[in-house]
Amino acid sequence: MKRLGTQTIKLENPVSIIDTASIVGKKEGEGPLASYFDYILEDEYWGEKSFEKTESKILYETINKVLQKSKKTSSDINYILAGDLLNQCISSAYAIRDTNIPFLGLYGACSTMVESLSLGAILIDGGFANNVIAVTSSHFCTAERQFRFPLELGSQRPQTSQWTVTGSGASVLSNDGSGPKITTITTGKIIDMGIKDANNMGAAMAGAATDTIFTHFNETCRNIDYYDLIVTGDLGHIGSNLTNNMLNKIGVNIEQKFTDCGILIFDKEKQDTHAGGSGCGCCASVFSGYLYKKLKEREINKLLLIATGALMSTTIVQQGESIPGIAHAISIENL
Amino acid sequence: MKRLGTQTIKLENPVSIIDTASIVGKKEGEGPLASYFDYILEDEYWGEKSFEKTESKILYETINKVLQKSKKTSSDINYILAGDLLNQCISSAYAIRDTNIPFLGLYGACSTMVESLSLGAILIDGGFANNVIAVTSSHFCTAERQFRFPLELGSQRPQTSQWTVTGSGASVLSNDGSGPKITTITTGKIIDMGIKDANNMGAAMAGAATDTIFTHFNETCRNIDYYDLIVTGDLGHIGSNLTNNMLNKIGVNIEQKFTDCGILIFDKEKQDTHAGGSGCGCCASVFSGYLYKKLKEREINKLLLIATGALMSTTIVQQGESIPGIAHAISIENL
Repeated sequence: MKRLGTQTIKLENPVSIIDTASIVGKKEGEGPLASYFDYILEDEYWGEKSFEKTESKILYETINKVLQKSKKTSSDINYILAGDLLNQCISSAYAIRDTNIPFLGLYGACSTMVESLSLGAILIDGGFANNVIAVTSSHFCTAERQFRFPLELGSQRPQTSQWTVTGSGASVLSNDGSGPKITTITTGKIIDMGIKDANNMGAAMAGAATDTIFTHFNETCRNIDYYDLIVTGDLGHIGSNLTNNMLNKIGVNIEQKFTDCGILIFDKEKQDTHAGGSGCGCCASVFSGYLYKKLKEREINKLLLIATGALMSTTIVQQGESIPGIAHAISIENL
Repeated sequence: MKRLGTQTIKLENPVSIIDTASIVGKKEGEGPLASYFDYILEDEYWGEKSFEKTESKILYETINKVLQKSKKTSSDINYILAGDLLNQCISSAYAIRDTNIPFLGLYGACSTMVESLSLGAILIDGGFANNVIAVTSSHFCTAERQFRFPLELGSQRPQTSQWTVTGSGASVLSNDGSGPKITTITTGKIIDMGIKDANNMGAAMAGAATDTIFTHFNETCRNIDYYDLIVTGDLGHIGSNLTNNMLNKIGVNIEQKFTDCGILIFDKEKQDTHAGGSGCGCCASVFSGYLYKKLKEREINKLLLIATGALMSTTIVQQGESIPGIAHAISIENL
């Protein structure tokens, strides 16, 4: 029986993540994880004429990098699963246009990295694919001007705001080859905490993170000790605290094992990002850069990775709606 | 062996579409398929204060209708796969927020209906789910003001433009129960024909449709006679003609069996929609309303359904980029 509960499945044949790649922006390259990334940009443009084209180039080059590192060619890849934050997911579409790989487009806001890893693992475990790429991206400048204010305004950012990571992360999943394996998948439901502030994404996503983490432990019958590390996608400082508190209230204490990609990627004291990092590229680059290497080196052997997304749209928030959140979780283990 | 070629897989256990539901707008309810839809709106708002909220309500009520028709409750559904045209897929997110079903968000523009049916069938055939809902929506007023001009401008529409369908269609896929079955899946690649005109979606998508249809026949080793009907998602009149012509040039003549959801849904002479219907809701409602009933009544026994999407974004088109297209195909058969 593959199904452990309403939201959790266990793969019959755990799926290997045979390699990963990550490319990040200048600011991310000045942070504590700098040495883990494959390439660090020198400026916001990377030779392109618009930030959107830059973001698409980052995603495209991350795909090339992961193909090269995993010694695969695009013809080895059966599906590419991708999405991003931009309207109509253009970073992904324009990057993948040039790859000649069958494409399944996803949208899960910042939860997209784990959504793509989940569906990629399902395609392989189900026998539908041999090799799959899961990839996402974000860019501070594209996200800020799409979701908040024109950059030229130089608007002051409130303390609850998170800094959208400029970066991309890609994984090659395979039914053949070694590497840490995806073993269980907990797919999230949409949870709305009633938050209406587009500058407080952490709070908007905390309810979904809490729900998915609680459900994962409940349905797998695992206890916190099972994992070496529990890492959320990009709740940042405020969302992580809220998640900790809410989980505590329902009797789950993960604090000792818990951190967040949005906390890890920037230096809280020196980099002035307020509530931490966010964006599809945050979870993608921190997982593909830092966490994957820790798994490969067996400093971590059992990881619970939960990517959280705020399903925010300026149009409907301006119409008075709150911002719903979603969180998808996967366990990645050295078996 | 499940894999028939680079882009096509054959399901080991074909997946039943046990029921469908469709809700459409007033104009669609005045067209030739009126009698096939479950519910027809009386105006553009359906009691909501914005077109976006109306579109989300249409999608939500279509989910309720398909649950009711298939005699399922939301707790029977393991996953809901959905997406739409609006920025950050808000019609889907806000509708599904209230369903309590694990959610996998998709973005494939107007190809989303077949993308969701494809992934839904994969989840079931792979043993990951018993029941899945695949659903999408669109609304003329939300799409027009997001992608083109404010409605209040009353801009004249060029003859190449298509009319975004107001409507939604949903299917319940199941491993238990009767109904027409999804048997093969051909996942598309992104194809860019260099079209830069946001009012000529048919031309932008024709290349992708041609590629996927050609690949499907090539990889399944089927000939045109195998199918009773070959229906594209929403190429409309112009895109369908282009697809026919391009297929003819590479030696594939589907003309006798070929039509398009965007052609079927409106009366070309009386309804003044220029190049025909479009939007995620076009393929979704025509399949869920009209084609599914024809399959159930065995007037059609073998259908090739190809949903086509123009991966268009105003931002990047304004930056001078062309509009890439994608097309996903499934065969649906009475076995």
